[in-house]
Amino acid sequence: MIAWPDIQAVLLDLDGTLFRGDVVLPGALALLEQLRQAQIPFLYWTNNSTRTPVQVVDHLRKLGFDAQVRDVYTSSLATADALADVLPGASTVFALGEEGLFDALRMRGFRVVTNADQEDEVAAVVVGLDRTVTYARFAQAMRYLLNPDTLFYATNLDRALPHGDHFMPGAGAVVSFLETCTGRKPVAVGKPQAAFVLAACDRLAVLPRNTLIIGDNAETDVAAAKRAGAVAVWVTTGVSHVRAEQGTMTISALTDLLPIPRSQK
Amino acid sequence: MIAWPDIQAVLLDLDGTLFRGDVVLPGALALLEQLRQAQIPFLYWTNNSTRTPVQVVDHLRKLGFDAQVRDVYTSSLATADALADVLPGASTVFALGEEGLFDALRMRGFRVVTNADQEDEVAAVVVGLDRTVTYARFAQAMRYLLNPDTLFYATNLDRALPHGDHFMPGAGAVVSFLETCTGRKPVAVGKPQAAFVLAACDRLAVLPRNTLIIGDNAETDVAAAKRAGAVAVWVTTGVSHVRAEQGTMTISALTDLLPIPRSQK
Repeated sequence: MIAWPDIQAVLLDLDGTLFRGDVVLPGALALLEQLRQAQIPFLYWTNNSTRTPVQVVDHLRKLGFDAQVRDVYTSSLATADALADVLPGASTVFALGEEGLFDALRMRGFRVVTNADQEDEVAAVVVGLDRTVTYARFAQAMRYLLNPDTLFYATNLDRALPHGDHFMPGAGAVVSFLETCTGRKPVAVGKPQAAFVLAACDRLAVLPRNTLIIGDNAETDVAAAKRAGAVAVWVTTGVSHVRAEQGTMTISALTDLLPIPRSQK
Repeated sequence: MIAWPDIQAVLLDLDGTLFRGDVVLPGALALLEQLRQAQIPFLYWTNNSTRTPVQVVDHLRKLGFDAQVRDVYTSSLATADALADVLPGASTVFALGEEGLFDALRMRGFRVVTNADQEDEVAAVVVGLDRTVTYARFAQAMRYLLNPDTLFYATNLDRALPHGDHFMPGAGAVVSFLETCTGRKPVAVGKPQAAFVLAACDRLAVLPRNTLIIGDNAETDVAAAKRAGAVAVWVTTGVSHVRAEQGTMTISALTDLLPIPRSQK
């Protein structure tokens, strides 16, 4: 059972938790509606680095969710936030990724280089899922990373992601390629890093111990909650084959969380 | 000192040992000439999986070596040999690699699939250095490898290779990408695997302990020799930053090996 009076915020995983592809999962719309009625702030909180907040909102609205851009926090946004803590805003970064990453970095004022033939010095190499990656761009990232002064950040280390009836390589595979040829390890930002929970909690001005994390992936969502000291609920609607460890609150559908008691505030 | 009377064959690394790019290294031509005069059989023995034996011979001849196709043994040839031991000759294999790998597999009778849109069942995924690799082809290899019956072979796990004044990602980086997204590890064939030494020795009908391995890379050439029980000479003309372990015979140029005493045969 969740001690709802202690919960001051909720972080919601997206794919596999609220929806699967274009299908809304049972209880998802009601959960969001009741969080609003109970005045419990929340974030759509995802490791997916490829979509911009606007694209995430578009998808959620298409599925019937009443989403706003300010409610979205992706691993790309968190990575740009983390870089902004250590680099001047006008720095040049080389990104292996997609629009969600480029957009997040640009929003933070960084100059984003993506092509192998741009020979500038860069302050950091940032890696997300990149479904158009080529050997030439890997080689360019390698050249930058062989300079030990160049920072190395990754939005997440997800090994694979579901795609219809099969799996596709995740950002972690892209990172592994670069780890092997450079001998370097990146600062990883997304789940299961506690930093991603802490940054989300910062946005909502709550403590992790008063934050409920709902997700379908034991290796990322639940692990992140444990590391950061947040409360975890594992919902088994996703495609993850790894079970959450014993003691984790496990539900078979979001409907099991309802109704959410009204806030006493 | 090398006990030349015990040496019945020599395995010669190429890039960094006999030449560097288009420059012949000191003593290389004389070494080959004296091996022939002493009637000591040898192989041009390389982890480079991208070139066919004909291409290797072309390059060697351009540099002044009197090379024959039968004198060349690449990691791609050894991989095709290893697969031929476990798969019927007409099997279909999916290859991430270049012409040297495709050619070696076809010479062994395999049907080679290289494009992501070829949806056939395959018996094996084989990985070498692939400087045109794309996410789509990685994803296709992943799909094949998620079938546990599909074999997984790699020509070598080299992390990087020299290219002019810098380094490029090696076959090992390509392999790491697939290891991460599939959770599988390949059978690696090239240096430093003892199997590559044993297969080369088989070709020359000699024992490893009577085989001299000359190379510039401590992590691959020297390590392979140690694992297989061959005699190693480390020549410091290459770009490798890893030193051979103490006790390895170390020379600063191939000229230090000359003259080779005439055979008593």
